[in-house]
Amino acid sequence: MNNYLLSSIKPFYVMEILEKAQEYEKKGRKITHLEIGEPTQKVSMTIRESAKVSIDKGRDRYSNSLGVLELREMVAERYEQNLSVNISPDQVVITTGSSAALILALISLIKAGDQVVIVEPYYPCYPQLVKIFGGRVRVFKTFENEGYQINIKKLEKFLSKKDKVLILNSPSNPTGVSQNKKVLSFLSSLRINIISDEIYQGLNYDFNPASILQYDKKAIVVDGFSKFYSMTGWRLGYLVVPKVMIRGIQKLQQNMYICAPTISQHAAIGALQIENNEISKMLKSYKRRRNYTINSLSSMGIDISYTPDSSFYVFANMTNYTDNSLDLSLDILNKVGLGVAPGLDFGSSFKRHIRFSYSSSYKNIQIGLDKMREYIKEYT
Amino acid sequence: MNNYLLSSIKPFYVMEILEKAQEYEKKGRKITHLEIGEPTQKVSMTIRESAKVSIDKGRDRYSNSLGVLELREMVAERYEQNLSVNISPDQVVITTGSSAALILALISLIKAGDQVVIVEPYYPCYPQLVKIFGGRVRVFKTFENEGYQINIKKLEKFLSKKDKVLILNSPSNPTGVSQNKKVLSFLSSLRINIISDEIYQGLNYDFNPASILQYDKKAIVVDGFSKFYSMTGWRLGYLVVPKVMIRGIQKLQQNMYICAPTISQHAAIGALQIENNEISKMLKSYKRRRNYTINSLSSMGIDISYTPDSSFYVFANMTNYTDNSLDLSLDILNKVGLGVAPGLDFGSSFKRHIRFSYSSSYKNIQIGLDKMREYIKEYT
Repeated sequence: MNNYLLSSIKPFYVMEILEKAQEYEKKGRKITHLEIGEPTQKVSMTIRESAKVSIDKGRDRYSNSLGVLELREMVAERYEQNLSVNISPDQVVITTGSSAALILALISLIKAGDQVVIVEPYYPCYPQLVKIFGGRVRVFKTFENEGYQINIKKLEKFLSKKDKVLILNSPSNPTGVSQNKKVLSFLSSLRINIISDEIYQGLNYDFNPASILQYDKKAIVVDGFSKFYSMTGWRLGYLVVPKVMIRGIQKLQQNMYICAPTISQHAAIGALQIENNEISKMLKSYKRRRNYTINSLSSMGIDISYTPDSSFYVFANMTNYTDNSLDLSLDILNKVGLGVAPGLDFGSSFKRHIRFSYSSSYKNIQIGLDKMREYIKEYT
Repeated sequence: MNNYLLSSIKPFYVMEILEKAQEYEKKGRKITHLEIGEPTQKVSMTIRESAKVSIDKGRDRYSNSLGVLELREMVAERYEQNLSVNISPDQVVITTGSSAALILALISLIKAGDQVVIVEPYYPCYPQLVKIFGGRVRVFKTFENEGYQINIKKLEKFLSKKDKVLILNSPSNPTGVSQNKKVLSFLSSLRINIISDEIYQGLNYDFNPASILQYDKKAIVVDGFSKFYSMTGWRLGYLVVPKVMIRGIQKLQQNMYICAPTISQHAAIGALQIENNEISKMLKSYKRRRNYTINSLSSMGIDISYTPDSSFYVFANMTNYTDNSLDLSLDILNKVGLGVAPGLDFGSSFKRHIRFSYSSSYKNIQIGLDKMREYIKEYT
């Protein structure tokens, strides 16, 4: 076995929470889950119907390796409509979830030993994927008291010529912060390759959605249908890349994936036809849940001192309660039956943080935060 | 860009045929496709219904990273029923197509620079995947006049201590040959890690299906639902691995894929419940198509001197007609509108071979081979 690699890949700490939660649930205990970054609402009827039609009509063979052309065209149109960015369907590659999009982008850009910059706090898979594909991780920190915005001056000093790729995640998991225009504009001026993971794009509650593509035509964008359309298990994402990269990525796709799941591709064509009022309703509901989460935490003494303006996460600093939020998370689960995600998963600087997800129903969030209030009151 | 890697990944020659065919089709010409390794029959009603129920019931979230437990249990049961092999559901990992299964196995076993033995003629993705993940390819040849069986004595001499993995493909694409018991038994005696790609397992027409697991408990098996159940676009495969490897593979899966497509997993649960008589009918139909293909080719002077006992391919030696079967394939397409796969894709020793696929309907195969007969008669 490739023991060196396998032992260097860390398990996710949140798995400890999940496994413990399952143990309790097996014993009949009711656990409230605010640790999971997965929308719980049912996918839209439009999506379900598209999928079923595709199944009935036998649209379930291998698709073109780059994806179903109609879907690629619709994705390109979306960029024009939503972000005023002009891209060609020839720049769009449909992928097996945004995971595959990220992997294809990484393999296209780095070779063994190349340095890859990731921004802390980060999506836990980033450093692991860089390692799996032979890259070297360099962590650039952002701070709560800077609103988790990338500090341009610090980044300028931090970067070296050896850094080949910077992975941006805006809106961010776990902070829910979108990088501001100044940052996006600065990043576009750099020579480094930007992989911009915009999987939470569109889930914006205070500002208009933004994309690195509005600033940098050469950037590579990772996006998908899992979060915005609640299509997590459908495994459908996409890449937007400069045309010059398409041929290489296509060859990788043919060998590594053949194509993205075909029925999911047709379902996604349905997703992109959902009426605007259905989308507005969803965004309003997320915003209400976001506000409730922040206000509720604040009322129990957990102040969120930055603005989580997007995605469906709030990253709470628990320094007043613990030096080790993994232990704290396990204790919360044990005492009041609430699952939360320990900050250590998102970077070593955040071992006193906890991520609350508001991707589940308002009702579920209420129950969860009531449990949190009880914990703070009774056990701290 | 990682130009070194990207330029070292070869495009598939069959793509030249496909692209040319599409060009002709756009101009209104009717092309018969015998170049494609994809069943054309509709998936079973049982599969479609299972998928639709899973969509309606909202069974479309991320699954457990190792796969839906019920499916893993059913796969394990199948090994007992069909092959008298006792495996535990804990050894089964559900993957995004057999592509992902192969990738997870490779990454688990090799590190940069490790040697991987592949058996020629080979599935074209093998050498490319080995390259993508930093391994070095060593090609072991098999020969038509040895029935494409692995020559044990030659292999014994060929292998060195530096070879870490051998990728076996039995039944084989492109030959349709299953390795015999002697070979499987010999392979199981070697120290090398065996990755046995058994994606065509069960599509056997002359002998009982066999698996390396009947001989070697430590072997890694790659299999899936694409070929046997015609579920190509559903992207669903699986790995059977020794228990000791599960934890490492699970960590890779979590980071690289999260999980296999959930609806496809539920559809596969349906697939494994298809009645035996439906399966028997399918196998009978394939056997009839196989026999027709061999007899028809023979009657036009193209003798198949070995027995393609499984999968849905016949690998024809065209030495009497050409030194370059890519040119020949393009000429056949041009002259009579028939698509066939040039042998070069399957290894440099086979540039005078052509692969005929009998995965499409009997009717389509008849039309295709009539075109071939016309070509041989009129243009050679």
